[in-house]
Amino acid sequence: MKMILPIIFFFFLLSSSSHASVVDFCVADLTLPVTPSGYPCKKGSAVTVNDFVFSALGVAGNTSNIIKAAVTPAFDAQFPGLNGLGLSLARLDLAVGGVIPIHTHPGASEVLFVIQGTICAGFIASDNSVYIKTLNKGDSMVFPQGLLHFQINSGKTPSLAIVTFSSPSPGLQILDFALFKSDLPTDIITATTFLDFAQVKKLKGVLGGKN
Amino acid sequence: MKMILPIIFFFFLLSSSSHASVVDFCVADLTLPVTPSGYPCKKGSAVTVNDFVFSALGVAGNTSNIIKAAVTPAFDAQFPGLNGLGLSLARLDLAVGGVIPIHTHPGASEVLFVIQGTICAGFIASDNSVYIKTLNKGDSMVFPQGLLHFQINSGKTPSLAIVTFSSPSPGLQILDFALFKSDLPTDIITATTFLDFAQVKKLKGVLGGKN
Amino acid sequence: MKMILPIIFFFFLLSSSSHASVVDFCVADLTLPVTPSGYPCKKGSAVTVNDFVFSALGVAGNTSNIIKAAVTPAFDAQFPGLNGLGLSLARLDLAVGGVIPIHTHPGASEVLFVIQGTICAGFIASDNSVYIKTLNKGDSMVFPQGLLHFQINSGKTPSLAIVTFSSPSPGLQILDFALFKSDLPTDIITATTFLDFAQVKKLKGVLGGKN
Amino acid sequence: MKMILPIIFFFFLLSSSSHASVVDFCVADLTLPVTPSGYPCKKGSAVTVNDFVFSALGVAGNTSNIIKAAVTPAFDAQFPGLNGLGLSLARLDLAVGGVIPIHTHPGASEVLFVIQGTICAGFIASDNSVYIKTLNKGDSMVFPQGLLHFQINSGKTPSLAIVTFSSPSPGLQILDFALFKSDLPTDIITATTFLDFAQVKKLKGVLGGKN
Amino acid sequence: MKMILPIIFFFFLLSSSSHASVVDFCVADLTLPVTPSGYPCKKGSAVTVNDFVFSALGVAGNTSNIIKAAVTPAFDAQFPGLNGLGLSLARLDLAVGGVIPIHTHPGASEVLFVIQGTICAGFIASDNSVYIKTLNKGDSMVFPQGLLHFQINSGKTPSLAIVTFSSPSPGLQILDFALFKSDLPTDIITATTFLDFAQVKKLKGVLGGKN
Amino acid sequence: MKMILPIIFFFFLLSSSSHASVVDFCVADLTLPVTPSGYPCKKGSAVTVNDFVFSALGVAGNTSNIIKAAVTPAFDAQFPGLNGLGLSLARLDLAVGGVIPIHTHPGASEVLFVIQGTICAGFIASDNSVYIKTLNKGDSMVFPQGLLHFQINSGKTPSLAIVTFSSPSPGLQILDFALFKSDLPTDIITATTFLDFAQVKKLKGVLGGKN
Repeated sequence: MKMILPIIFFFFLLSSSSHASVVDFCVADLTLPVTPSGYPCKKGSAVTVNDFVFSALGVAGNTSNIIKAAVTPAFDAQFPGLNGLGLSLARLDLAVGGVIPIHTHPGASEVLFVIQGTICAGFIASDNSVYIKTLNKGDSMVFPQGLLHFQINSGKTPSLAIVTFSSPSPGLQILDFALFKSDLPTDIITATTFLDFAQVKKLKGVLGGKN
Repeated sequence: MKMILPIIFFFFLLSSSSHASVVDFCVADLTLPVTPSGYPCKKGSAVTVNDFVFSALGVAGNTSNIIKAAVTPAFDAQFPGLNGLGLSLARLDLAVGGVIPIHTHPGASEVLFVIQGTICAGFIASDNSVYIKTLNKGDSMVFPQGLLHFQINSGKTPSLAIVTFSSPSPGLQILDFALFKSDLPTDIITATTFLDFAQVKKLKGVLGGKN
Repeated sequence: MKMILPIIFFFFLLSSSSHASVVDFCVADLTLPVTPSGYPCKKGSAVTVNDFVFSALGVAGNTSNIIKAAVTPAFDAQFPGLNGLGLSLARLDLAVGGVIPIHTHPGASEVLFVIQGTICAGFIASDNSVYIKTLNKGDSMVFPQGLLHFQINSGKTPSLAIVTFSSPSPGLQILDFALFKSDLPTDIITATTFLDFAQVKKLKGVLGGKN
Repeated sequence: MKMILPIIFFFFLLSSSSHASVVDFCVADLTLPVTPSGYPCKKGSAVTVNDFVFSALGVAGNTSNIIKAAVTPAFDAQFPGLNGLGLSLARLDLAVGGVIPIHTHPGASEVLFVIQGTICAGFIASDNSVYIKTLNKGDSMVFPQGLLHFQINSGKTPSLAIVTFSSPSPGLQILDFALFKSDLPTDIITATTFLDFAQVKKLKGVLGGKN
Repeated sequence: MKMILPIIFFFFLLSSSSHASVVDFCVADLTLPVTPSGYPCKKGSAVTVNDFVFSALGVAGNTSNIIKAAVTPAFDAQFPGLNGLGLSLARLDLAVGGVIPIHTHPGASEVLFVIQGTICAGFIASDNSVYIKTLNKGDSMVFPQGLLHFQINSGKTPSLAIVTFSSPSPGLQILDFALFKSDLPTDIITATTFLDFAQVKKLKGVLGGKN
Repeated sequence: MKMILPIIFFFFLLSSSSHASVVDFCVADLTLPVTPSGYPCKKGSAVTVNDFVFSALGVAGNTSNIIKAAVTPAFDAQFPGLNGLGLSLARLDLAVGGVIPIHTHPGASEVLFVIQGTICAGFIASDNSVYIKTLNKGDSMVFPQGLLHFQINSGKTPSLAIVTFSSPSPGLQILDFALFKSDLPTDIITATTFLDFAQVKKLKGVLGGKN
């Protein structure tokens, strides 16, 4: 095909596709109210490649805390280029003895990939079956949506993992925080968990929960 | 329009709509393997009105148990007409002092409607805010998807509520069962919840959890 | 586990989860323009438990009208806590002889639960099959999305039912209103329904439809 | 880039992409039970280009009937290549005076494109607003999901239109058929539509409805 | 049913359905920021039938260009009534020898209907299978989501087709434009496509791509 | 709460939750025909923790090929525990000079996380804007669904990345394979890409495409 394409080439196509970048992606405008489908989109003219790139997961989280672990999120609120695209990620750092306490992500599934170290991970299904495995470097494990799960550094060196979620805003409900760092009254906790009063008060004392 | 509609009326329309009942609904064929979107559909010729009607929610659950409460589900596995339609329901019976322990429905939201009695209900959000309210007859409360929540009969008479879910198979993960009725090892529980060893063993003893 | 959890406990987790309440729910800000996925969300700081609780379904609807029936909706526009969560509900009151005329909910499925009385309910499928049943107290019936259906008090006492929808804004198109209360011209109605001109005019006269 | 690509080029990519054709599309295997998400897929090896091509819309429907109109569907049951892809289409033929009676597609939206002739089309919204327009060759009109709508040939020549739906199996509920061709008892029809008994009986007589 | 419907008829139903038009559709307010689910909705009071009707597809596109073809879109940005409804359309004009170059619609499936002429159309699956067919007037062909496809006027007269998409904003990525009209550096193009440097430079010269 | 929980504890809850494991997850039964929503689920009794764990991503791909790169997929067909959960992953190995050629994932978005080395990555939007960035260890980049994108090892050491997709079966369409390894006739390629005949023939010779 010997062709000399003049300037008018595809003129109409061009004019129509000038709207198209809006539909390819929707970088979050975090200054506007969020909707059930995510944040409204930044104007196309304001979007740069940096909206699609995120570097904070390259920095180790501070594990100098009681759980000897840290979670660094890259959800839509931190990484606006993910908005509306159905996935997000996070970095897990677990020092020796580190633990990510039992938690759920309401409505999002998770896949974990071990970059370094050894992690004992597990989840509990609705029928109370337990799925638990010691994962080594290079192993992946999936945690189906909304189920209680945990990760423990079961090795003798620090562990590092990247986790991905099936939602740009998966949420994170840590069981201990929900019960003992919140203002849920102690008598309601004991009534709905069958934990002992003293146990609840002890953990509230540590975590700061009132009532 | 003076019309004498002959037998050939809409002939083509008719032939096309003979397939249509398949698309209106998809009554679960529970004998076939379920898929991520629900069960395969029964043949249209096998469907009767009874597939769309369910009577078991009319029967009070047996509350002669330690929680003095009962949940009667009408999920797709019990009520096949709900299959694929995005909602299901359940009946809650709470005797005086009855409690539905803290639990989640992985990935489904819930609305509760109080038919009888007084129910103290609440949920905890990911930021550990607590939303708790005493509900009277006629009150509704919504529990957003995947969050820990509970219901307590806070009155002096039996309570009855109907709850609805935004999924035909919402799941039900009861915290105490997940921890203390399962085979999750005690040392993992203590490590990931900070509960005392003795507390865990005590509840495992009651609920039957091993390890 | 002997633990003294210091103030820095979970420091990073905390800061990340401060965004999380946004993702758990999206209480409608009814002052902002709605989107295809629902209303934009109220700021988390403005949300209270009352956004998740609704009391109007506890009040009997006024059935002193020609259909001897009333529908009290709890859609997202009335019950903002439902916004984005995929379900809503309504209360049906049917006095003796009361009727909810034939109607559809465009795109939402419905489940009805009879709290009191006897209701003859039914729907018609695309292949013109009729599914009809007399429901007693405690019975449930599902009406698949978008299909014509109705409810009639077929007993000798008032009836009460709670219905739930698979959408926070299911819509409600009442056949008689669409045809006879609207401005759809009579000649178009007769041409597209084959009803007699006099019949259409009679019902328009009653319901107030013009043209 | 001076390159000599050997046979081993992309070896791994190749082996992985051998599964990929499954995910690109899902041609319906109409012999297997349908699921809420559509039919199971034919094996990739059995798929040919003819699964993606459909010719029946090129043939004029037979309008020698009382409505002087015909609908030729290309839903998934007729055009298996559409299965799972979220859209389908149909051909409308309207002879002079032809009418597509008032109907809904439960849960699917529709766009009509006029190829030939003049069509008066309209729909009625839930608030009983009427949206009606005379469309000429080249005009498009959208009918939002689940709402009552109709098409009338309002010109002096035959009309032809192509309609598309936002679902591979949109369903088709024709009001007159639902009421007068079905077995819905006459007393229920009169009670739930306020039509006169004689009117219902007359149309049942024409369309063949019993009871 | 002898009835005298008074003014209070359906009073409650009426008040509830006054919100309903919002849920039936969501005509795009193009002045507001778009969201992942589409544009915010115009107020119901501002909506007219013209929001649901689009005439520009009735006008032949200008094919006096090098591809001898034109695409006229009716996406949500052009046809606001489609917003949120899951489908859109476009008109293809192909003069004799006209070609719609290889392109994709990221995330939307397409169905083409030939109104006039003869079109050779095809797509390539992930496993590199080619599905290609010569389509005549009245033929339809489906192009599954995201796959490379093309249309060529293979006849001796102009061709006209209507295409429909499974999204109101399907996007349009034309391969030649992406590679040779963009600022993608030539060395990256050669490295990632294995095209010769001279070939890339030649087409960049024609199409205007830099670097 | 002094409690002695007898064996009958939660009897009803137990029986209902025996179905629940089905809804928590849907491990693919790869022997059954796939559906648009994924594979049918294995029976709950056959599910083990190994269905949720995948080790093949821990093994470096073989980069001894012309692109000096390898992609190791963990899609649902390889990692059945992902079925129906809305995400999947893959491992990218890029030797020095390695390239993942321009490709798309039809309908899935992707996030890449660099574990080792330096990767120059980019995508092209529908409006032909180019988003390109050199990523270092710890950087993430998102590639919105269906858009052409590529990855190049731009460093002096091997690179390793983990990518995640917003679908369990994202597909993979490699541009060069689609054009030059397929049976797409050369005259169609030249007509629809404007590439020179000789260029097409040269690459077909290398990659094995016929016609």
